[in-house]
Amino acid sequence: MKFNIYHKSSTCRARTGSISTPHGVFKTPAFMPVGTLASVKAVSPEELVDAGAEIILANTYHLYLRPGHKIIEKLGGLHRFMNWPNPVLTDSGGFQVFSLSRLCTVTEQGVTFQSHIDGSKHFIGPEQAMEIQRALGADIIMAFDECAPYPADRKYISNSVKLTCKWAQRCMDCDRRAGQALFGIVQGGMYMDIREMSAKETVRMGFDGYAIGGLSVGEDSKTRNIIVKGTVRFLPEKKPVYLMGVGTPEDLVESVISGVDMFDCVLPTRNARNGTLFTTTGKIIIKNAHYVDDERPVDENCGCYTCRNYSRAYLRHLFMSRELLAYRLNTIHNLYYYENLMAKIRESIRNDCMDSFIQRFYEARNNNKQS
Amino acid sequence: MKFNIYHKSSTCRARTGSISTPHGVFKTPAFMPVGTLASVKAVSPEELVDAGAEIILANTYHLYLRPGHKIIEKLGGLHRFMNWPNPVLTDSGGFQVFSLSRLCTVTEQGVTFQSHIDGSKHFIGPEQAMEIQRALGADIIMAFDECAPYPADRKYISNSVKLTCKWAQRCMDCDRRAGQALFGIVQGGMYMDIREMSAKETVRMGFDGYAIGGLSVGEDSKTRNIIVKGTVRFLPEKKPVYLMGVGTPEDLVESVISGVDMFDCVLPTRNARNGTLFTTTGKIIIKNAHYVDDERPVDENCGCYTCRNYSRAYLRHLFMSRELLAYRLNTIHNLYYYENLMAKIRESIRNDCMDSFIQRFYEARNNNKQS
Repeated sequence: MKFNIYHKSSTCRARTGSISTPHGVFKTPAFMPVGTLASVKAVSPEELVDAGAEIILANTYHLYLRPGHKIIEKLGGLHRFMNWPNPVLTDSGGFQVFSLSRLCTVTEQGVTFQSHIDGSKHFIGPEQAMEIQRALGADIIMAFDECAPYPADRKYISNSVKLTCKWAQRCMDCDRRAGQALFGIVQGGMYMDIREMSAKETVRMGFDGYAIGGLSVGEDSKTRNIIVKGTVRFLPEKKPVYLMGVGTPEDLVESVISGVDMFDCVLPTRNARNGTLFTTTGKIIIKNAHYVDDERPVDENCGCYTCRNYSRAYLRHLFMSRELLAYRLNTIHNLYYYENLMAKIRESIRNDCMDSFIQRFYEARNNNKQS
Repeated sequence: MKFNIYHKSSTCRARTGSISTPHGVFKTPAFMPVGTLASVKAVSPEELVDAGAEIILANTYHLYLRPGHKIIEKLGGLHRFMNWPNPVLTDSGGFQVFSLSRLCTVTEQGVTFQSHIDGSKHFIGPEQAMEIQRALGADIIMAFDECAPYPADRKYISNSVKLTCKWAQRCMDCDRRAGQALFGIVQGGMYMDIREMSAKETVRMGFDGYAIGGLSVGEDSKTRNIIVKGTVRFLPEKKPVYLMGVGTPEDLVESVISGVDMFDCVLPTRNARNGTLFTTTGKIIIKNAHYVDDERPVDENCGCYTCRNYSRAYLRHLFMSRELLAYRLNTIHNLYYYENLMAKIRESIRNDCMDSFIQRFYEARNNNKQS
C-alpha cells in the first residue's frame, strides 16, 4: 500500500492524496460505502462506481457467519465473490462482536460470543480476525480491537485500551496475504490522555495506517470533534487516518479539517432505505405528503441517476408502496451525495479554498432552515 | 396501432410480426413483464430493456388506488412517471377488483368494492375503467370485464359473459387518448360454446385486438390449451391475440402454437423474488444447500447480467441473507430467460422451424429430469 499526499490546506490539517492497493487506487479523503454482507445494500457494483465510490468496506463478523470466510476464499476471495474489482477494506469484527452478538465474554485470548442469527457459539481473537481477513482477501484489513461501551469509566477504558494494544501486536505478528495493508486502531473512549497513550503505543508498532475507533457510539458531535482533532496530532503525518463509523455530512467536513483521510458509515445507505434523502440544503423525508405530486428531482443540482430520471412524486409513490426500486433509487442518490461531497472537499483542498467551501456548505444548510 | 404479420408457421398457427404504438414498436409474439405499481418489481427501466422487454403491463386497479390516476396524469402520464419511454399496456382493473378487493358487489352499472389496502369504498364500471386508463395514458388499454371465478357453473358464466359484452360496448363508446388502442376480452370460463359466443360478440364490436381472459385461474394446462386453441379460431387473423396472465415457459410455447401474440405474467418476477430461477434445463431453487459453493452461473448458456457476473454461490448467499440485490439479480435473470425464449420463438417462426424448436425445448427439460 502506498499513500501519496498531493496537497495540504494552508489553514487546517486537511490534505488530499491517493492510496494505491493491489486492486487499484482511491483518492483521499475517501468515503467508503458499507457492504456488510458482500453487497452494499440495494445497489450493484456498477452503481457504486457511478456514484463515485472507489473503495468499499465489508464486515468480517457478518461474512464469517454468512456465508463463511472459507467459502468466500474457495470462490476466489471477496472481490470476485461480489463482482467488485476495486479496493476493499474489511473491519476486524471487533465492533460487531461487541455490539451485535449475544453473551460475549472477553479474555486476553479473545472474545467468545453467540451468533445474532442462530445463537451458535463462536470465538474470535486477534489471530482468528487476521485469518478470516486473510481468507476474505481485502486490500486493507484492521487489527482486532475492543470497542468499549459508552459511557464507560476511566478504569474500564484504560484496561480495554491495554488489551487492544496487546491484540494489535498479535495481529501485527500474523501472516497476511501479499499486498494486504494492516491498520491499527486507536481507542480510549472520551479520555484524551488515554487516547494519547493508545495512539503512541499503536504508532510504535508501525502499522500501514491508523484508525480512530470507539466514536459515533452516542457521544455528542462536539466531543467527537475534540477527540478526533486531539488524536490525529499523535498520528504520523505520512500515514492515512481512518475515522471509523462516522458519520453525517457535517461530521465528514469537520473531520477532514482535523486531518482525517478515510471514512465509512451506514448513514447514506440506511437513511436511503428509511426514505431520508440528503441534499445540499438539508434532508428530505420522501414520504411527506407534500411530495405526492412534486415533479422536481430530489435535488435540482444533483447529477445522479435518480435525480436525472425520477421525480420526488415517483420516489414517494415507490416508497409508500414498498417497491424494491425505492430502496435502490434512494441509495443511489444518497451515495452520490456523499461521494460528491468528498469530491468537492478534495477539490477545495487542491485549490486551497477549504474556508470558503466550509462557509458555503453551512450557508446552504442554514438558508434552508430559515426559509 | 398497427399490427404487421411478417411470417406464419407452415405447421401451426404461430405467427411473428410487430405492433406499432405511439411509444414505439414491439415484436410479436411478445412477453410483457408486469409493472403492477408503475415499477416492474426490483428492476429499473434500463434493466428491462437489457432483458429484451419491449412492452410492459401496468395495473389499473393498483395505480387507481396508489398513487391515483389523476396524480399520474398531472405528472405527464405513466411513461414519464416511471421513466419508461416504450410501449405500455394497462389492464382494465377488472381482474384485481374481483381477486384482490373485499366485499365487491356487481351490478350492470359496474363494481362497488373495498380497497385491499385501507378498506375504503370505490366504484369502477366500464366508463371509470376507461377514464382511469385514459389518464394513465397507456398505448394499449383493455375493456372492463368480469373475470369469473373457477370453477363456475354454465349459468353463472353465461350471465357473466353477457354482462362483459355489454360493458365492452360501453368501453368502446368512451373517449380515448389519441392513438390509444382498445382490446376486447373474450370470457366464457371452460365452456367452449360460451367462449365462441363471447368471441363472436366481442369481435362484432370491432376492437383493435382481442384478449383471452379468465384463464390461469386454477384449471389444468391441458384444459387451458384446448380453450385457447378453440377460442383463437373465432378471432380475426389480422388482429393481435393476447392471452392474459399466462404463464409458464411451456404455456407460452403451447399458446404461440395456437396463434397467441401477446402474454403477461408475474411468474418470472415473482418466482425470482422467491428464489426460483428458470433455465433451459428447468428450474433452480437457489436456496438449496448444494449451491453454497457453486461457482457456476445460474445458466452457463445465459447471457444476462446476472449470469455474466455472479455465481450461484453468491446468489444463494444474497438470497439467504435477504439482501435486496438478490431480488434484482434473480429478476434480471428470469426476465432475460422469458424474453430470450420469446426471441427464440420469433426466430423459429421466421425460419419456419417451430417443430424442431419445440422438440429441442422439451428435450432439454426432459434430459435434466432424467439426469
